[in-house]
Amino acid sequence: MKTVYITRRETFNAAHKLYREDWTVEKNEEVFGRCSNHNWHGHNFTIFVTVKGKPSPDTGFVMNLKDLSDIIKAEVIEPLDHKNLNLDVPFLKGMLASTENVVIQVWDRIKAPIAIAGGELVKIKLVETENNYVEYFGGNEPF
Amino acid sequence: MKTVYITRRETFNAAHKLYREDWTVEKNEEVFGRCSNHNWHGHNFTIFVTVKGKPSPDTGFVMNLKDLSDIIKAEVIEPLDHKNLNLDVPFLKGMLASTENVVIQVWDRIKAPIAIAGGELVKIKLVETENNYVEYFGGNEPF
Amino acid sequence: MKTVYITRRETFNAAHKLYREDWTVEKNEEVFGRCSNHNWHGHNFTIFVTVKGKPSPDTGFVMNLKDLSDIIKAEVIEPLDHKNLNLDVPFLKGMLASTENVVIQVWDRIKAPIAIAGGELVKIKLVETENNYVEYFGGNEPF
Amino acid sequence: MKTVYITRRETFNAAHKLYREDWTVEKNEEVFGRCSNHNWHGHNFTIFVTVKGKPSPDTGFVMNLKDLSDIIKAEVIEPLDHKNLNLDVPFLKGMLASTENVVIQVWDRIKAPIAIAGGELVKIKLVETENNYVEYFGGNEPF
Amino acid sequence: MKTVYITRRETFNAAHKLYREDWTVEKNEEVFGRCSNHNWHGHNFTIFVTVKGKPSPDTGFVMNLKDLSDIIKAEVIEPLDHKNLNLDVPFLKGMLASTENVVIQVWDRIKAPIAIAGGELVKIKLVETENNYVEYFGGNEPF
Amino acid sequence: MKTVYITRRETFNAAHKLYREDWTVEKNEEVFGRCSNHNWHGHNFTIFVTVKGKPSPDTGFVMNLKDLSDIIKAEVIEPLDHKNLNLDVPFLKGMLASTENVVIQVWDRIKAPIAIAGGELVKIKLVETENNYVEYFGGNEPF
Repeated sequence: MKTVYITRRETFNAAHKLYREDWTVEKNEEVFGRCSNHNWHGHNFTIFVTVKGKPSPDTGFVMNLKDLSDIIKAEVIEPLDHKNLNLDVPFLKGMLASTENVVIQVWDRIKAPIAIAGGELVKIKLVETENNYVEYFGGNEPF
Repeated sequence: MKTVYITRRETFNAAHKLYREDWTVEKNEEVFGRCSNHNWHGHNFTIFVTVKGKPSPDTGFVMNLKDLSDIIKAEVIEPLDHKNLNLDVPFLKGMLASTENVVIQVWDRIKAPIAIAGGELVKIKLVETENNYVEYFGGNEPF
Repeated sequence: MKTVYITRRETFNAAHKLYREDWTVEKNEEVFGRCSNHNWHGHNFTIFVTVKGKPSPDTGFVMNLKDLSDIIKAEVIEPLDHKNLNLDVPFLKGMLASTENVVIQVWDRIKAPIAIAGGELVKIKLVETENNYVEYFGGNEPF
Repeated sequence: MKTVYITRRETFNAAHKLYREDWTVEKNEEVFGRCSNHNWHGHNFTIFVTVKGKPSPDTGFVMNLKDLSDIIKAEVIEPLDHKNLNLDVPFLKGMLASTENVVIQVWDRIKAPIAIAGGELVKIKLVETENNYVEYFGGNEPF
Repeated sequence: MKTVYITRRETFNAAHKLYREDWTVEKNEEVFGRCSNHNWHGHNFTIFVTVKGKPSPDTGFVMNLKDLSDIIKAEVIEPLDHKNLNLDVPFLKGMLASTENVVIQVWDRIKAPIAIAGGELVKIKLVETENNYVEYFGGNEPF
Repeated sequence: MKTVYITRRETFNAAHKLYREDWTVEKNEEVFGRCSNHNWHGHNFTIFVTVKGKPSPDTGFVMNLKDLSDIIKAEVIEPLDHKNLNLDVPFLKGMLASTENVVIQVWDRIKAPIAIAGGELVKIKLVETENNYVEYFGGNEPF
């Protein structure tokens, strides 16, 4: 059997802002534009989690998608959905709530549970709007 | 020439919550669920504005789409994009920021400018997530 | 308050075939084409359920979307998802499993529960593939 | 049996421009903007054709989707796909190639063949870009 | 000239189930959940086939997309569309009809014909639902 | 901090044809099919530009998306939108206007401005229709 990549999609809706307390309002607006709005804005985020592995001869599965979905729901959707990324999420506290920073933290939360369930996390894609998304390979640079 | 319907799509990203100050936190959560989160959540909203009319023999247009887009941008996108629907929007002040209420207020803002530009507003569709949207025909009930 | 239309989307995956036992295989293939394949085929179905009403001054809602979702899940998704529309679904027994017939039966199942929950069912859209869908207004003909 | 609406989607790619020979270049640009570019531009058009009727007890169909698809392909896709709407299409000659005008002409081409095949054409939706589309009900105004 | 990757999308609709005859019904349901339903379920599958190569100075093409489409239609769509993946497909006989297994078999069918037509198959993406898909690089692990 | 990939989407609408003046009409049609139509056809093109880098501790950004968008708009959208790819675009003159050739030229235009703005261009995806797209990694072959 050869390596196959499987991906599971989940969604969450959240508020955030891009704002540094140690900068003036003007400086924040200059760098972050409308994303710095004091009273927050928000998005429908979509996350795609990719796991690679060899399909099991027993099941034909790289990993049971239900297990993968359960891990994402417990570690990502539950803490982020209908939340404020700056205020409500312990593992994002003290950092800028940019999509880049979120995807790195999410990686660190789901990598181990996925490994325990028999999969190898290799990519996360986090879509913020129809016009922008980030991808993270655990720091690796495949291209 | 016969009546044709034209639709323009625009998008905005905003924070909101569904919460009544005169209810307890428990009552709010019972009715509004996770949407009542104190610290807000948010969405990528998509709005579709439909205008009907007879195509002009001069232009082939029911209405110039650029004019329609300009009206939506001035009256809807500018005041709502990257804003907090509960806190930042004068014309939504004092009301529950449900998608139903937003679409009614948006109708009242863009109906007159569209009429001045020669079109007749007949429908607004406001998409909150991939799983829900509202439609408003100015209170009319075509079906 | 004026009438607003709200729509909830849900999905299910099912097998079916278009086949009449009282016709020959050839006749079935002539009328139904590849859809008559003896061993079934299937689809990712998407259903959009539209309810109209006046937003409640208490909640800003035409109807609580969670209630609407719960009704669709109980009456449509649970009996149809990962099922064979010809064999597994009591309320489709004895009829051709065309999308037209399914949408009529679904209407009759969800109309009353939605009314009890305070909404008025006015439209169901059932998408079979990216290239075809049906819409049903309870037999009404708005256009 | 009660009335159901069925819709078939097809696509075509075409060039066009919005330009009047009896206007100056400046006047064309003022009215039609970049769409007046002398050397043409183009779109991936998507057309949705909706037919209503009562499902046949024999087939469960309002109309065989294959027949509907064949009519659209013969009358719309074949003459418009990979064509120049201003230069190559006899039934669009001498008119402004606006989406409004195209949809009206398409209606007149497919209404009779659909009726002969047993369906009643009630709506055409023609999508030009993700940001705009037109709808035509044969001149009727359902809302 | 430098290497470019081109991708062609095709679709097919099929029934399948995930079920092992050497397991009890209970064991099947425990592992495969609703996917083990005895009477099948189905999906609208979407396949994306990616080929790499240097654009020909003669045509500007890595490979003629029509040739690529013809190969996919002959080798994948024809044998799988409106079929039962467990029962109707010789090259899937005797194996679990998981998306992982299907994509591996499809690779082996189209690799040689694509090579003969001058292209190098490098990736297949097979989408089962909006929430899950698999990707296969012929066993290679680019990330 | 570890490497993250960010992607920005933009769109443009353009006309083109695939045609060689040194070939007969018949030869052009044999190779390029309907794409060789003398009077042009067109598409809604969608471009996805991917940049990699380490998120800045100051901003949480790999690169400011507004800067990336501005570069794409200036170097790609402005010269290509509502244009004829064969006639109106200096940097495409004298070459076949295949999607492969376009993506290579676009790469060369935006690589340096992105580098100046602090990012590293690593991928461009150019979507011509829902059924085909090209990807370019600057000639690199990550898989």
